[in-house]
Amino acid sequence: MIPQQLPATAAPVPGGRVCAHPDRAEIRLEAVLHALSDPMRLRVVRTLAARGVEAACSEVELPVSKSTCTHHFRVLRESGVISQTYRGTSKMNALRRADLEALFPGLLDSVLAAADRQDGRLGGVTGLVRS
Amino acid sequence: MIPQQLPATAAPVPGGRVCAHPDRAEIRLEAVLHALSDPMRLRVVRTLAARGVEAACSEVELPVSKSTCTHHFRVLRESGVISQTYRGTSKMNALRRADLEALFPGLLDSVLAAADRQDGRLGGVTGLVRS
Repeated sequence: MIPQQLPATAAPVPGGRVCAHPDRAEIRLEAVLHALSDPMRLRVVRTLAARGVEAACSEVELPVSKSTCTHHFRVLRESGVISQTYRGTSKMNALRRADLEALFPGLLDSVLAAADRQDGRLGGVTGLVRS
Repeated sequence: MIPQQLPATAAPVPGGRVCAHPDRAEIRLEAVLHALSDPMRLRVVRTLAARGVEAACSEVELPVSKSTCTHHFRVLRESGVISQTYRGTSKMNALRRADLEALFPGLLDSVLAAADRQDGRLGGVTGLVRS
């Protein structure tokens, strides 16, 4: 059983389409680590962390097809790492930083710092350069 | 390309069979997170961390078949999370704590602490109880 496939509950969003999100209590460490372990998804998380505000999928540059991109955002949402909210025709993404920090203090920051260090060490961008 | 499938170099062990390990510089964050994201592998890492010394595969209780167990230990080794060394007929496992700490300061401890917190929250053992 893959943790991120646990049942997810939907938070109602007035006047908009709804994406299913796990409640904070449903978020599992294993699923979060799995979500972060993919280079493209780690890239998304780093981008959202650097921006500090929500961003449309199209604002996060990923060198993959649109369907693959959609898949990665869904894995991040279903694991509890990001929230996705419709605003008009755009799906906006935001890190669930408060939830992650409450559940796993320091974990997200240590992963973000590790990715930065790896960039410095390899002279590339973790998640894009894999030499 | 999956990071943990990068070529691994073998460190020679005098007088014994040799397991291939990535050098410190070859260890990648994404592969480490992937290795830690599986409940059984996280269980292995927590057990080794709690013991503080190397342990035989048979000393780490996992409710899976021997071949699955071997697979999990191999993923942990190939990602750089553990070392495996033959001593006679036993394959002994140890956390590569110094390497991980040098590359990703605080990451391993934050994952271990997060697993402990999740146990406390769910009343189970992360990696074994998945309710």
